[in-house]
Amino acid sequence: MKFSIIAVGDELLIGQVNDTNTGEIARRFGEIGWEVNDALVIADDADAITSAIDRAFRATDVVLMTGGLGPTKDDITKATLLRYFGGEMIYDETVLANIEKVFERRGLKMNELTHRQAEVPSSCEVIQNEVGTAPIMWFEKTGKVLVSMPGVPFEMRAALEKIAPKLEARFPNDLKIVRRTLLVTDITESALAQRLEAWETNLPKFAHLAYLPQPGLIRLRLDCHISEKETDDAARLFDEMRTLVGDNLLFDDDLPLEAILLDELKRRELTVATAESCTGGNIAHRITSIAGSSEAFVGGIVAYSNKVKISQLGVNANTLTEYGAVSIPVVEQMATGACRRLGADCAIATSGIAGPGGGTEEKPVGTVCIAVAINGQVTSETRRFPGNRERVIDRATSTAIISLIKELRKH
Amino acid sequence: MKFSIIAVGDELLIGQVNDTNTGEIARRFGEIGWEVNDALVIADDADAITSAIDRAFRATDVVLMTGGLGPTKDDITKATLLRYFGGEMIYDETVLANIEKVFERRGLKMNELTHRQAEVPSSCEVIQNEVGTAPIMWFEKTGKVLVSMPGVPFEMRAALEKIAPKLEARFPNDLKIVRRTLLVTDITESALAQRLEAWETNLPKFAHLAYLPQPGLIRLRLDCHISEKETDDAARLFDEMRTLVGDNLLFDDDLPLEAILLDELKRRELTVATAESCTGGNIAHRITSIAGSSEAFVGGIVAYSNKVKISQLGVNANTLTEYGAVSIPVVEQMATGACRRLGADCAIATSGIAGPGGGTEEKPVGTVCIAVAINGQVTSETRRFPGNRERVIDRATSTAIISLIKELRKH
Repeated sequence: MKFSIIAVGDELLIGQVNDTNTGEIARRFGEIGWEVNDALVIADDADAITSAIDRAFRATDVVLMTGGLGPTKDDITKATLLRYFGGEMIYDETVLANIEKVFERRGLKMNELTHRQAEVPSSCEVIQNEVGTAPIMWFEKTGKVLVSMPGVPFEMRAALEKIAPKLEARFPNDLKIVRRTLLVTDITESALAQRLEAWETNLPKFAHLAYLPQPGLIRLRLDCHISEKETDDAARLFDEMRTLVGDNLLFDDDLPLEAILLDELKRRELTVATAESCTGGNIAHRITSIAGSSEAFVGGIVAYSNKVKISQLGVNANTLTEYGAVSIPVVEQMATGACRRLGADCAIATSGIAGPGGGTEEKPVGTVCIAVAINGQVTSETRRFPGNRERVIDRATSTAIISLIKELRKH
Repeated sequence: MKFSIIAVGDELLIGQVNDTNTGEIARRFGEIGWEVNDALVIADDADAITSAIDRAFRATDVVLMTGGLGPTKDDITKATLLRYFGGEMIYDETVLANIEKVFERRGLKMNELTHRQAEVPSSCEVIQNEVGTAPIMWFEKTGKVLVSMPGVPFEMRAALEKIAPKLEARFPNDLKIVRRTLLVTDITESALAQRLEAWETNLPKFAHLAYLPQPGLIRLRLDCHISEKETDDAARLFDEMRTLVGDNLLFDDDLPLEAILLDELKRRELTVATAESCTGGNIAHRITSIAGSSEAFVGGIVAYSNKVKISQLGVNANTLTEYGAVSIPVVEQMATGACRRLGADCAIATSGIAGPGGGTEEKPVGTVCIAVAINGQVTSETRRFPGNRERVIDRATSTAIISLIKELRKH
């Protein structure tokens, strides 16, 4: 089953916020085997909305629309949907009661504009948005369905959980998507593609292979759109892909690196600490973004200044003078210092030049020293990452996490 | 001048990666007064690409296309553009020389698939991609221009810097966009809208107001599409908007909170440290994402376990037992401890329950204690944020940064 997405909002088109809703919707519906046909971002403009719906309904029977439902004048989605699907604007008491509850929970007072949020077209079925004030609206017209959801990401996410089962019941599906993603390291995209070329050429029509390069790794994904009786064929393809990847496999599932790391630590009953200079807390942030990380993660030191490297991590002042902050001896002392000071079994340490300033001929911007320590045993490397500050921090973070995953597996 | 964006890639439609290129493009062209008409995300599929180009050319004269240019079989954009614009596939020696340079810089070996990257349609003008292997391609047909750029964000960003001036020269513009964004705090979106209602209703046609709620603040943006002689009218509107926002103004420009904080610190010649529990390093990460942050930021402690709170921040063990880790006394000790231990003038500290587990009736998920210290003077508050783990961390991070900004201004 294919469907269309329309995201409404000037803020998306001027780049003031990035659209993350499309990805959320795609992932949630991917679980029930539905595919996004395409996703269109348009302005808060009645003509643009109307012609986008016309276009989407020509291609698919289901359209999911996000955004443009706020109480302010720039949001015109609701009025436009009223004109498109007919009926009149009515005041919905259950929506009002819900808005009152949301405001009470947030400790806020309602005003006239908030009251206006309780108006809905009579042509839609209202689904309560329990985490916000803009109602979810379900429209049907000649067998086609459009659902309008709030654009605020966490409200949209809550809305998805309500409408996905309803849509699945409304449009039962025969074909399913089976998907497997391998995380592949230590190989370039083109070298991997060459290794898979013969196999890829002979893939059946129901299978589709994609290479998704990320900092420090490639996500290799095989999608199979199959009926029940093709289940074994798909399983065989997955096995073949796994065999071809061989030793370059980092992980056999589409998990974030930090979740893989935490899993490796927990299985060995080891704890971890971080000692970050150039990554500035991003490694700790990535690890603690995973629920339950406190079982393995004890804490970290962001040692941005040399003074903090000395006082908090016990880095030797002479080592700093002799080799500089961005050096293997310093980053190794940071790793062992983090274990000792924070009482952890393992540590990840980084020191580098994220840029744009601070580079030298010998140590240009992008140079990052990474050390990992496991029970007192330290390994380290110096890398040079391309790109701007954000990218260097991101690459260094991923590379450091991958380093510890690999070292743990050797133990 | 309006233009269209087409992003090609199955990975975008299944939600494996979020499209950040559209935002980058919009921001870059916003600087020269160009507006995105709409942005369409489509699959790696020849028919989808062809009909997307047809559609975009009906609406605008310029189409920017990203993605689908990798060396692997799933990437078919180049072949599709060849069919669309005509000509034949030719081998471009300058592209090959560039690829060789990129590979050499990355310390990689080229293979046959990489060589294929040097093939381009004879109907396009090639623009060198100096940071990657996929060439940038400029096509023209009956006065319309399509530029195909690589989808990898940092390569796309580099490509933008090359094509934006070329497009500006190709399509000179009379009207310009003047834009002002105010960061507004301590007011709900609907209360702000009510305050602005009368003024907003009377805005001239060239002006467009948008409310962009973010964790802890609202970005209020006024866009004016004006000719040279309307410059003063726009300036007057900006002044009126500023007056109406009044004391709720946090900052008079669209800067990240962490940049505003660093600016306030530097102007007072103060340094800052962080002491983070529930935000897990995100505050330090956000601060250090800004180039030049090392002038004011000395370092931070991610004190996830109680042991680390005691050993690294000097939190009193009895206070932890008596009040619990998520409490005002503990978070205040974290803030003063960070100043003392890391030798900083100011500190930001957080301790809370990000969820999904760990909540109690008295302290439910979303409860976060925040303290800021300036030269030994501590202020603190307990907040309760809605949403999932990611959102709680994000809200707590922004709120804590805003707290220190406000306290600094009182000094």
